Amino acid sequence: MFKAVAKDARLLRDSVDIISQLIDDGLFNITKSGIELETADRTMVSFIDFKMKASSFENYECDKDASIGINLLNLLTVLKRANLNDKLTLFLNEKDSALEITLEGSSVRRFSIPLLQISKSETPDIEQLLKKFSADAEVSSAIIEQGINDADIIADSVIIELSPDKLRMFAEGNSSKSELKIFKGTDTLTKLNAKETVNARYSLDYLKKMIKGSKLFDKVNIMLGKDFPLRMVFENDDIFLGMILAPRVSESE
Amino acid sequence: MFKAVAKDARLLRDSVDIISQLIDDGLFNITKSGIELETADRTMVSFIDFKMKASSFENYECDKDASIGINLLNLLTVLKRANLNDKLTLFLNEKDSALEITLEGSSVRRFSIPLLQISKSETPDIEQLLKKFSADAEVSSAIIEQGINDADIIADSVIIELSPDKLRMFAEGNSSKSELKIFKGTDTLTKLNAKETVNARYSLDYLKKMIKGSKLFDKVNIMLGKDFPLRMVFENDDIFLGMILAPRVSESE
Amino acid sequence: MFKAVAKDARLLRDSVDIISQLIDDGLFNITKSGIELETADRTMVSFIDFKMKASSFENYECDKDASIGINLLNLLTVLKRANLNDKLTLFLNEKDSALEITLEGSSVRRFSIPLLQISKSETPDIEQLLKKFSADAEVSSAIIEQGINDADIIADSVIIELSPDKLRMFAEGNSSKSELKIFKGTDTLTKLNAKETVNARYSLDYLKKMIKGSKLFDKVNIMLGKDFPLRMVFENDDIFLGMILAPRVSESE
Repeated sequence: MFKAVAKDARLLRDSVDIISQLIDDGLFNITKSGIELETADRTMVSFIDFKMKASSFENYECDKDASIGINLLNLLTVLKRANLNDKLTLFLNEKDSALEITLEGSSVRRFSIPLLQISKSETPDIEQLLKKFSADAEVSSAIIEQGINDADIIADSVIIELSPDKLRMFAEGNSSKSELKIFKGTDTLTKLNAKETVNARYSLDYLKKMIKGSKLFDKVNIMLGKDFPLRMVFENDDIFLGMILAPRVSESE
Repeated sequence: MFKAVAKDARLLRDSVDIISQLIDDGLFNITKSGIELETADRTMVSFIDFKMKASSFENYECDKDASIGINLLNLLTVLKRANLNDKLTLFLNEKDSALEITLEGSSVRRFSIPLLQISKSETPDIEQLLKKFSADAEVSSAIIEQGINDADIIADSVIIELSPDKLRMFAEGNSSKSELKIFKGTDTLTKLNAKETVNARYSLDYLKKMIKGSKLFDKVNIMLGKDFPLRMVFENDDIFLGMILAPRVSESE
Repeated sequence: MFKAVAKDARLLRDSVDIISQLIDDGLFNITKSGIELETADRTMVSFIDFKMKASSFENYECDKDASIGINLLNLLTVLKRANLNDKLTLFLNEKDSALEITLEGSSVRRFSIPLLQISKSETPDIEQLLKKFSADAEVSSAIIEQGINDADIIADSVIIELSPDKLRMFAEGNSSKSELKIFKGTDTLTKLNAKETVNARYSLDYLKKMIKGSKLFDKVNIMLGKDFPLRMVFENDDIFLGMILAPRVSESE
């Protein structure tokens, strides 16, 4: 039996919103400790590892682990129907093979969405990968979003670079250029570890989706290596939202 | 001669907005007691009976009854040009066969829209029909709008049901379901008369248009019968807006 | 060397926004006294003369006159990336043949857009033209915008008319009409010089673009002659934005 009452319906909705940007169907693992999702997007260019802790719910009951396949857009559409003060309850209806979402306010509304048959996907060994990043930073997520949108008016990819004293984003296209710099020690770049300059080029289409996390999180952790994937982590006491994006190798360089 | 100064330009605009959702061209009857419209939509699936009372105008002069055909979108487009504090005057220019709308604020603006030749349409005998409804309710219009929008993410029709203790809306499609319940005695369901459970299925396309009345009215009156049309009435001291919607017979049931 | 720090990034952005409605590529003349643009639109129906004074910048350095060709949409897209409190600096990078725009806030962002080869266009002799207008008025720009939008729901052109006691705008189409009148001596028509009634018909497509100046300026100066171009001038201590629009000759009149 799984049943959980959300502490903050908006937090759940916005998390699903971000994930649904990258993933169509996801296999959620429901355990005593919370709800987890680990999956690559269809094109295998990006990977998400998400966890919403049991403690982030007002009430959380799970007496048996379960893996449920959910269409994320389907779930999001229902979550968007919640009003600000509605009490939102998730319930796994195993008999009907459905996830039930109940919204209680001035009326009682119940939605039911079907569970999907999804097989567990191959996932990268994140622990192994984490050892290979050579630089990392904790940055204002709003500034990174700005840098992504700046680059987006110029090109379809951006170079992200960490060096001992700064974070830099750089794009070039059609004779136009954009460049953003944030320096170590400022309010917006609260941590920076880089022994040497490392950078790589990433697709703006993916970055624009990943950075939607800035809606929920003020800070984002960024990890880089030379021509290596980008690791982006949004995190607070309730939610862990990690993403990995493969670098883009441009032939024209 | 017909000339009327609106007390509230927004009330007139929003009423015409709602009607124009369902009706293209309408034959308005102008009498001493007010402005009336009774007409079925082009597909004959829904019917509107609308009255704006003479007393709802700041000033109302009508020395001869008149029936004028108006394209509702044409009228709405002009009414939308009014500013918040404009004095809005309607004037029937019989010589030019036009309805004139004057907006007086920091400038004087006059619009003229042509009268159309429209023959009186067959209308259902509402008095007769009213006797056949077996249940009715007075409900928060915002909640009904919510139930309609909930169902709209799932299916293209919804079952509306009145029973002795509650109002219920239910939709099902593609393995997903939505259900809304409001119970007798709550703030949102202020009146309920149903000796037994009656329900019928209605098209969401029409319901979404009809419920636009919630913009102007907090409450809506709903009348039902078993597999019978739905009667929806929005009403205050100034305006009566009644609508009838034929039930939808789904073969798959 | 040209380098200038904007006093108000929004003023620069909105000016470029208005100009970009009419002009694709423009040749800006940069001199000690400010930045100027004089150019006809591609169809030669309208003409813009724009000046942003050196004194309207917080800091303005120009030791050599320069003429630089800029794609206005390109420039606007960059200017729109500025945040409210960013320090905006323009710098002419002659070596790279580029205009650099730097935005300094919580990060440092630098954009570079390419200079274009544009030859000086034929421009009308404005001084000569100005002598031929027979009537002029200073009007609330919001009211003129209203008159333009009123006419726009009826037709694709509007007659603008100045007479000794009023300004009048009039449109007719598909049996519908719109008319706006503002009278001399009201708050909205602060100046009016017209010995006789003069009017001409103008394209609403162009007027809708030209009147965007109302976003920045409360007043607009209008000059007219019988079946003559329209002169529209927005002006304050920092900016002069003049436009000329050829009259439209309708065969159906």
